[in-house]
Amino acid sequence: MNLEDRVRELVEEVVPVDRDAAVIATERHLQLTKPAGSLGVLEKLGAQLCAIARRCPPPVPEKPAVVVATGDHGILAKGVSPWPQEITAAMVKNFCEGGAAVNVISEAVGAQVSVLDVGVAGELPYHPRLHRAKIRHGTSDLSEGPAMSREEAAKSILAGAEVAEQLQRRGIDLLVTGDMGIGNTTPAACLVAAFSGLAAEEVTGRGTGIDDVRYKGKIEIVKQALELHSPDPMDPLQVLAVLGGLEHAALIGVMLRGASLRVPVLLDGLASNAAALVARALTPESVSYMVAGHRSTEPGARAALEILGLSPLIDLELRLGEGTGGLLAVPLVQAAARILRDMATFESAGLY
Amino acid sequence: MNLEDRVRELVEEVVPVDRDAAVIATERHLQLTKPAGSLGVLEKLGAQLCAIARRCPPPVPEKPAVVVATGDHGILAKGVSPWPQEITAAMVKNFCEGGAAVNVISEAVGAQVSVLDVGVAGELPYHPRLHRAKIRHGTSDLSEGPAMSREEAAKSILAGAEVAEQLQRRGIDLLVTGDMGIGNTTPAACLVAAFSGLAAEEVTGRGTGIDDVRYKGKIEIVKQALELHSPDPMDPLQVLAVLGGLEHAALIGVMLRGASLRVPVLLDGLASNAAALVARALTPESVSYMVAGHRSTEPGARAALEILGLSPLIDLELRLGEGTGGLLAVPLVQAAARILRDMATFESAGLY
Repeated sequence: MNLEDRVRELVEEVVPVDRDAAVIATERHLQLTKPAGSLGVLEKLGAQLCAIARRCPPPVPEKPAVVVATGDHGILAKGVSPWPQEITAAMVKNFCEGGAAVNVISEAVGAQVSVLDVGVAGELPYHPRLHRAKIRHGTSDLSEGPAMSREEAAKSILAGAEVAEQLQRRGIDLLVTGDMGIGNTTPAACLVAAFSGLAAEEVTGRGTGIDDVRYKGKIEIVKQALELHSPDPMDPLQVLAVLGGLEHAALIGVMLRGASLRVPVLLDGLASNAAALVARALTPESVSYMVAGHRSTEPGARAALEILGLSPLIDLELRLGEGTGGLLAVPLVQAAARILRDMATFESAGLY
Repeated sequence: MNLEDRVRELVEEVVPVDRDAAVIATERHLQLTKPAGSLGVLEKLGAQLCAIARRCPPPVPEKPAVVVATGDHGILAKGVSPWPQEITAAMVKNFCEGGAAVNVISEAVGAQVSVLDVGVAGELPYHPRLHRAKIRHGTSDLSEGPAMSREEAAKSILAGAEVAEQLQRRGIDLLVTGDMGIGNTTPAACLVAAFSGLAAEEVTGRGTGIDDVRYKGKIEIVKQALELHSPDPMDPLQVLAVLGGLEHAALIGVMLRGASLRVPVLLDGLASNAAALVARALTPESVSYMVAGHRSTEPGARAALEILGLSPLIDLELRLGEGTGGLLAVPLVQAAARILRDMATFESAGLY
């Protein structure tokens, strides 16, 4: 089977969630010892977990893991970030050694960290926490030509799917999507623009915190890339290939495989939100398996979440990536599931 | 020493936090392996924890506990809630038996539950989880006279302080404030009105979800109570006595004693926010020890948080009370502390 056929298969394996289970959860919530609706968003989240698991109460996710997909970006040559490309590889080392924010927050919420190299420039040494599935050493400059080929995009999707599958086989029951790649908010902004129809100014942000000059240049580059490629949202793989990053592609694979394995997928910020737009374009039902962990300060994240129809659980002005915002929402997902499983009903508590 | 003197002593023991430690935290954050400011609110929270602990990095709270202060309300006779008074005692039983939302969420975030009876109508049987410090069997109808005497208010503050102290002695390093009391959003709205100067309409909400008729009646009652008592914010104990609830008073004690013991106090929703306004009126420095766990949908909660100058960590349309919203923010507080303690610096990671 060729690569694109394998992606098509991955997409087709995403089947609808069980909306009846969500209805049962909503009814159960009315019997629990609290005023109706008083747990707000947590009640909706609980119902979604039931729909994903096809049962109520849902399983409580006890083994979460974050997949930090990593890659470099040809567009960096155009000065979209003040950080040098070498930082991507250096941060991968930091992830492996346990010193990054994603490690510390994973520790805080009891999650495992898996790092996936699909596109870091340079060779990375073996590490048990690192999945080495490099497809190429960074993308090409998307403002001058396609960032990658369709085949490479497909390959990276499949690499992400493979990691999700391995993790699920090892008992992981909640997947958090994370990313690292110096320069990767530019392709993310391009993807959001392509799938939203919004203008470059509306979806482009300051990433790690760039100054006005760089910011204006970044907007120009997004505009230029959109003009060059005239992305067609009806051909999501093509949009991804010409405008995206290898790590975005890999996260799409994590989302699709997570969905077909009925594992909830907890999204981090902009990179994950942009990837989710591609997953949605491939199969809208994939969104039913997604939970928005947080809302990044990046304007593209807000735009993407609106299209996805997802309300973020956390909104704390984070803009770090790595999966940090998604991980912080893990305890909320666990609490939403536990409420349905463990709370007394008016009947069981003798309260009528 | 009389009761009011003992409260005065409690207030005086709240000393300023160490703002230098917060500055050191802010500087340390710039050295950690992430873009400057990219952890948003978590960075400010980390700095606050340092200011409270007088050191950087701050201790990571590993033993959180929620204090659920409980009491009944004479105002219930005026139909402010469709729930009967007996539900308060029944829910205390539920808290003791572990079936309520506060228990389930405590379990999810690894917190202990302490229930404090300062004012439930009726006798409650012994339970190891229940602190029995009943001051009276519910308050009087605040729309017709003072809810309680100054001495009773003072006594309840001291009871809350005593519980906070006991918990801290047992190793509790993060206090979450919770409440239960059928009808208690009416006194809470009155307290917020008294300390904010806002009109009854602006601070009164639907509590557990009352219909339009009850809601209009509730606003009228708040209005009437404010006219009857003409509360003077310069005499916070008096305002508390005439308009408040015994559980609000107890939570003020938890906040003040938590502060003087340098234990961060994580606020739940409306009842906690209203109590925090009284604590602030007694000593503004107490607010430096408070973290707003969440924002309730109650309009009074929003108004109170604005006056307190606290941004809620979570905003998930919760309106349950019991401490549930505060508890959900526990992992965020832990993560904020861990980041300062455990993340690699650019230097230690060899990243320059």
